Amino acid sequence: MRVVLLAHELFPGRAKTAVGILRYADHEVVAVLDRDLAGDRVSEHVPDVQDAPIVAEVEDAPDCDALVVGVAPIGGGFEDSWRPDVRGAIERGWDVVAGLHYLLAEDDEFARLADQHGVDLRDVRDPPADLSVATGEGVDARVVLTVGTDCSSGKMTGSFELRDAARERGLDAAVVPTGQTGIMITGWGIAIDRVISDFAAGATERLLRQAADNDVLFVEGQGALTHPAYSGVTAAILHGSHPDALVLCHVAGRETVGGYDAFDIPDPATYARRYEQLADPVSPATVDAGLLNTQTLDEGDARRAVDTYSDQLGVPVTDPVRYDVESVLDAVLA
Amino acid sequence: MRVVLLAHELFPGRAKTAVGILRYADHEVVAVLDRDLAGDRVSEHVPDVQDAPIVAEVEDAPDCDALVVGVAPIGGGFEDSWRPDVRGAIERGWDVVAGLHYLLAEDDEFARLADQHGVDLRDVRDPPADLSVATGEGVDARVVLTVGTDCSSGKMTGSFELRDAARERGLDAAVVPTGQTGIMITGWGIAIDRVISDFAAGATERLLRQAADNDVLFVEGQGALTHPAYSGVTAAILHGSHPDALVLCHVAGRETVGGYDAFDIPDPATYARRYEQLADPVSPATVDAGLLNTQTLDEGDARRAVDTYSDQLGVPVTDPVRYDVESVLDAVLA
Repeated sequence: MRVVLLAHELFPGRAKTAVGILRYADHEVVAVLDRDLAGDRVSEHVPDVQDAPIVAEVEDAPDCDALVVGVAPIGGGFEDSWRPDVRGAIERGWDVVAGLHYLLAEDDEFARLADQHGVDLRDVRDPPADLSVATGEGVDARVVLTVGTDCSSGKMTGSFELRDAARERGLDAAVVPTGQTGIMITGWGIAIDRVISDFAAGATERLLRQAADNDVLFVEGQGALTHPAYSGVTAAILHGSHPDALVLCHVAGRETVGGYDAFDIPDPATYARRYEQLADPVSPATVDAGLLNTQTLDEGDARRAVDTYSDQLGVPVTDPVRYDVESVLDAVLA
Repeated sequence: MRVVLLAHELFPGRAKTAVGILRYADHEVVAVLDRDLAGDRVSEHVPDVQDAPIVAEVEDAPDCDALVVGVAPIGGGFEDSWRPDVRGAIERGWDVVAGLHYLLAEDDEFARLADQHGVDLRDVRDPPADLSVATGEGVDARVVLTVGTDCSSGKMTGSFELRDAARERGLDAAVVPTGQTGIMITGWGIAIDRVISDFAAGATERLLRQAADNDVLFVEGQGALTHPAYSGVTAAILHGSHPDALVLCHVAGRETVGGYDAFDIPDPATYARRYEQLADPVSPATVDAGLLNTQTLDEGDARRAVDTYSDQLGVPVTDPVRYDVESVLDAVLA
């Protein structure tokens, strides 16, 4: 599938869906929309993913199959400044794929236009209608859950890097996608944060069952356990995934919760214990490894930050984008 | 409002909504429907609430304003054996009030009948459409959150008993209803377990703001923090309510999670610490008191169980139905 990624004013730092698709999806990205960076190329900003031109609007992009909304703002709202591009995409006969809480298919203008032009509006965050409560039963596959000290701390990225490394070892491995980006990359999954809260653990169990024939499942965690807004989603996935091992993800240098600066992030060892203590009565699991996002650091500082985080947690740590994940994979498969 | 309560085959032990309404609501209950107990009276089964006849079906009940579905099965489904009574109520011109995940207003037969007979179908579990994510901000009122070791452990009952005792001391006190029974009793609130999980903490914050002009708020907790199905709802309310004090509710003698017998309930002191540790990074609060449901015990055993639970937690404990709540109220207001 050939796609254009919408990431206005947020590429690449705050466009994790766009960057995730550039890095992990099989789609061919023919352009990125960011009016602030128009004229640049992706490779000037993110060196280690597929390259594409950055353009200001849909009219400047090559033809393709779908426009993908590649940003996920807090609250999942739709920015009205994106409307001309979504309208333009539909009028050019492209499908539109989005992972917002705001459902494009329920937008009167878009629904009418899509109908006229015979295109699909795919809201990947919209969950199945037949979900129910958790049963308390896990699966036979080894389940590795990425958990975080915050949102956007590398859980999705880490899950894909670990999956790829496990596959290179000859294991049947899959990512279990629990958020919009993972769903767009893999083509399946449920956005757990959009599920009725009573059914969130049950929806996670359903995803496990769908992938249960693998040797190892890397479940993409969401949010953070002491996050003032999203801890409920985190707890539901922690219990609904019945993990065998946890991997704690953190962004180097981040000390307060993103977007909620009044709240400190607990120290790494304490945070790891909180996850273990809460998991224990349902599915005992320990934090067997850590992943550290060192994107903002130079090479020397990055190495030192990884070593420090490893000392603090007492387990192997890597930056899965900067380095390999072998030591972490060893730890979670042990 | 005159109401009939539907509680077929579950009254009183597994009909907590019906019992809650009998005990705390201003409604006049003119009959309870339970085909297993037809011919009995409420007072033969629950001595300390308003009395009413128990009948087998709607046709046997006196006329009233509304039929209230007074049970809340796991999963929130609609039992088809209730259909003749709901149909009969609508045909007699009564409104129907329910707190199920299954929405009566979306049932084709009921919607059509209700339209014909000009009655309302009120699904109190259906949340507002304009919810959003939490802001991280609490309110000035003192917030006391009832938390539990399991579902149906007395959080709603305890919240109402504490409210009434606080009002007798001259305080402006309110229950913040987060579940269907509390909503049916008070006439306001949001069923947090029905809210999109990303918005569950935010919905709790909204409820706090609506009641913020009180001196003290007793927030009805939901589920339990290590419950295999509902921990997400619990965590969202724990953080979204920004509590100043926690009250741990437990059913005497219950050792495994109700309906999930493979899972042990952690010991009281450990469970209290888990709630405190998870609350701490967002809103530091300690378990300042406990509530123990001793319904199945005789007087001597009940007294001993309360004392033991108090020793285990190291804080005042009472059974709020059997005894007064003064010592617990002192502790949470201190």
